[in-house]
Amino acid sequence: MSRRILVIGGVAGGASAAARLRRLDENATITVFEKGPFVSFANCGLPYYVGDVIKDDKDLVIATPARFKERFNIEVKTMHEVLKINKEDKTIEVKDLNTDDTSVESYDALVLAPGAFPIRPPLPGIDLPGIFLLRTIPDSMQIRAWMDQYKIKKAVIVGGGFIGLETTENLVHRGVEVTIVEMGTQVLPPMDPEMAEVLHEHCKAKGVNLCLGDGVAGFYKTDTGLEVATQSGARYPCDVAILGIGVRPETKLAKEAGLELGKLGGIKVDEQMRTSDPNIWAVGDAVEVKDFVTGQMALIPLAGPANRQGRIAADAINGRSSTFRGVQGTAVCGVFDKVAAATGASEKTLKRYGIPYEKVYLHPNHHVGYFPGARNINFKLLFNPQDGKILGAQAIGEAGVEKRIDVVAMAIQQGMTVYDLEESELCYAPQFGAAKDPVNLAGMVAANCLRGDAPVIQWEPIIKGECDPNHVLVDVRTKGEVANGMFTGARNIPIDQMRERMSELPKDKPIYVYCGVGIRGYNVVRMLKQCGYDAYNVPGGWTTYSFLSKCVK
Amino acid sequence: MSRRILVIGGVAGGASAAARLRRLDENATITVFEKGPFVSFANCGLPYYVGDVIKDDKDLVIATPARFKERFNIEVKTMHEVLKINKEDKTIEVKDLNTDDTSVESYDALVLAPGAFPIRPPLPGIDLPGIFLLRTIPDSMQIRAWMDQYKIKKAVIVGGGFIGLETTENLVHRGVEVTIVEMGTQVLPPMDPEMAEVLHEHCKAKGVNLCLGDGVAGFYKTDTGLEVATQSGARYPCDVAILGIGVRPETKLAKEAGLELGKLGGIKVDEQMRTSDPNIWAVGDAVEVKDFVTGQMALIPLAGPANRQGRIAADAINGRSSTFRGVQGTAVCGVFDKVAAATGASEKTLKRYGIPYEKVYLHPNHHVGYFPGARNINFKLLFNPQDGKILGAQAIGEAGVEKRIDVVAMAIQQGMTVYDLEESELCYAPQFGAAKDPVNLAGMVAANCLRGDAPVIQWEPIIKGECDPNHVLVDVRTKGEVANGMFTGARNIPIDQMRERMSELPKDKPIYVYCGVGIRGYNVVRMLKQCGYDAYNVPGGWTTYSFLSKCVK
Repeated sequence: MSRRILVIGGVAGGASAAARLRRLDENATITVFEKGPFVSFANCGLPYYVGDVIKDDKDLVIATPARFKERFNIEVKTMHEVLKINKEDKTIEVKDLNTDDTSVESYDALVLAPGAFPIRPPLPGIDLPGIFLLRTIPDSMQIRAWMDQYKIKKAVIVGGGFIGLETTENLVHRGVEVTIVEMGTQVLPPMDPEMAEVLHEHCKAKGVNLCLGDGVAGFYKTDTGLEVATQSGARYPCDVAILGIGVRPETKLAKEAGLELGKLGGIKVDEQMRTSDPNIWAVGDAVEVKDFVTGQMALIPLAGPANRQGRIAADAINGRSSTFRGVQGTAVCGVFDKVAAATGASEKTLKRYGIPYEKVYLHPNHHVGYFPGARNINFKLLFNPQDGKILGAQAIGEAGVEKRIDVVAMAIQQGMTVYDLEESELCYAPQFGAAKDPVNLAGMVAANCLRGDAPVIQWEPIIKGECDPNHVLVDVRTKGEVANGMFTGARNIPIDQMRERMSELPKDKPIYVYCGVGIRGYNVVRMLKQCGYDAYNVPGGWTTYSFLSKCVK
Repeated sequence: MSRRILVIGGVAGGASAAARLRRLDENATITVFEKGPFVSFANCGLPYYVGDVIKDDKDLVIATPARFKERFNIEVKTMHEVLKINKEDKTIEVKDLNTDDTSVESYDALVLAPGAFPIRPPLPGIDLPGIFLLRTIPDSMQIRAWMDQYKIKKAVIVGGGFIGLETTENLVHRGVEVTIVEMGTQVLPPMDPEMAEVLHEHCKAKGVNLCLGDGVAGFYKTDTGLEVATQSGARYPCDVAILGIGVRPETKLAKEAGLELGKLGGIKVDEQMRTSDPNIWAVGDAVEVKDFVTGQMALIPLAGPANRQGRIAADAINGRSSTFRGVQGTAVCGVFDKVAAATGASEKTLKRYGIPYEKVYLHPNHHVGYFPGARNINFKLLFNPQDGKILGAQAIGEAGVEKRIDVVAMAIQQGMTVYDLEESELCYAPQFGAAKDPVNLAGMVAANCLRGDAPVIQWEPIIKGECDPNHVLVDVRTKGEVANGMFTGARNIPIDQMRERMSELPKDKPIYVYCGVGIRGYNVVRMLKQCGYDAYNVPGGWTTYSFLSKCVK
């Protein structure tokens, strides 16, 4: 008799697992239960459907139950909610939401891919009409219908994460005035605050009203629509409010079945995605996985890892030795004309876990400046101060951003160092990059720091006055540049006068050097060090200061 | 007394070496001799200056002699030709081309960065007015002046390499009718012929007259302009002819000085870029370097490696242990709306050196299909058939091409395998990629082949009849698709009918399966293998056939 394999949840991880299960076992009976009306749909596309960038909801469905049947001989039961797992007798209880009939299904192997549910805080007025989540196709259809029906002009987005920012962009695109209410002090939590600051500026420039560091206190109905009240007492009138606060792993079934959960509240699995029960595997947003950069467990509700996990669970069920290597936090978000991307650990994550790091900033063009259309990338690289191993990277810019992060993601996957980035051989033609690609430059700046060629001093201790009190801070930009702003207390010696004016600087005090982005500073530091000065470069120079200074308290 | 370091040649490698020499030694006397009128100029931008995409020639000069002086305290002497190196007494003889004065300069260390010179074959009429090279700023200015003066309508580009294709695009952009005369049977030699075929189609679609496999026999003056005669007897009238045949290392000085040359005719250097003379280093287009993928020596006239080499020579001169890790052949070329990029070895290179390889093709979208604007990428991955180590990749498409090649370039740098590509965690949002990025997919297809899950049979043996004569070839596309073309002798069983019609296929013969791009073929092969068939997938399916078949003789 053929094996019976049941899959609970039919989106990214569940659908991947099911398809691969069939490719590994033509004879198994494979059934997918999905409590919603759709399987294998494009949740990442939902904000763009709301924004009418994706015009047809049919485009959001990647594979229908009919397609699963005819192509993979997989039974997909949508609108079927699994009520209970009886792991002792290897059965599940399923309710057909169309008919309310329940049935019991037995399994040889069970894959849990229940996903995560969006947080819906129990605030006053949370159930008022006009307040939406954005997690499913029906959610997005309801929002579209509401927008069309009420010709909405003002929206409040609660939460400034991926969904919040993408939805903001899409609503603005449709002519809606948007306020983002975010409890934290920054948008896009995977980025560090000073990098997020670049996005704050950009959102404001696009007319978005950004309300940071203020949580929602409640929702109220008004004569003309809704009002979102915040903890600080502010009130934002709107026609629609969309919650993008975050998600929590859907673990109800697992918990009730007595499966072990992890410390973060996700389902605990081994490297082969097996739960504490030998016949049950779990994948996707519901599980805890190891972040191999920090060594810590993490909840990563992203489609890429979910797909990889689905395949690995299918392999394991078929006796293969595949293991999940963990996650590294690669992510990207389009925010109007900007792209923000990151891989590896952020500085705040490294701090939280007490992992030693050094960091550099740079602000190179995405391709050579002499070719028309060059755009700046704000780039941050985090690395181990001993061996130069890359720990993380963040980048924001208008073009070529996710390419550089993907390249660094590969480097992190393989444990590469900043010295390896210096030597990377990447595509170069004038419209695509530079003979020294931004990735090479990041490696060089970091390696210059580690080799002691150009030691760094960060802006934070300078701003906070936590550095050597005897230091001399030198701005080596031109007169014209410093006229537009300069750090209080810095003295200006333009780079091209440095050789003749070097004697104005003391040899017995640390000399902190900054320029516009760090390149001239580096050259000056080299000059000074060779002449016996104790010189340090400030990574990223004035450009880094311009946004970092807003985050230093 | 301070060291005297002389640099011959002031473009990519020479300029990089000089700047780094200064950063490592503030006291050295550093002088750069450049026989042309410019140093540190953007040769990669020249075709775009001819095309008026870059409008101002000043943009092509990255750093002037004055800048080198004031910023780096480096003496740059343009229009100074070095006539001779006397390595025994460590001097060079230099001629000032402005005054014809000669002088002798002594050195402690000498860096040769003479570059390469463009090939100008001794053909009849080669010196006629209207025939140009495109290697220097003056070259590009002459071409522009000629174009403006004669209002040129027709051009012949001799050579279909990087410069030839970029110049073609730029002339077409300016309304010129272009014929490319290329002696080889394909454009863009780093690509394999079947990949180049995609570019051939694209060039033709853009109105370019492509004359392949035919060398130039001579140039003739006509009443209205020029005529380019080819060896086959064809004649192409034109108003301008631009030679982009390739370059040769500039080794005259080195050879006359008795420095060792390599087998390929470039200057021989060690891992620290030191020539056979202990006081002379050489970098850039003039040197031979090791291709670390093939283990063979190579001439790679590209700016990226030249810059890396310049820095390493400077390090070595300053007693540092930096070594050049070799080249891997990463390159990119814009060709009208397409981008062609490659890294690592090509199939023809692997064949030439007898290096074992397997290959797969795939044709994924550059981002998810449900997001508007998805564009196809033709992707080829070459890998070691034993351990899956990646040997090379080539990609052609309209967007996201060089990103994927850069990612694979990182993988090759670190000796990663196709199994690593399967597990890579890359940026995904709908407008940037897919949960399974094209790079992941390439890894999966290759790994499926190596694991035996989906063994591959290539098109070449099928087309040539060099495969098992008993094979059965099955096209698993839909009726609608096969109506537009199908391999002669193949039988059509659409994938969704395969389970019920499988018994039509023999179990004692190899079954070769193909579909549109390889995905359905893979699923069918899995079905068949599990049911006891000896099944093989044809990588890239009909899409690969459509261009590969034109190259199989």
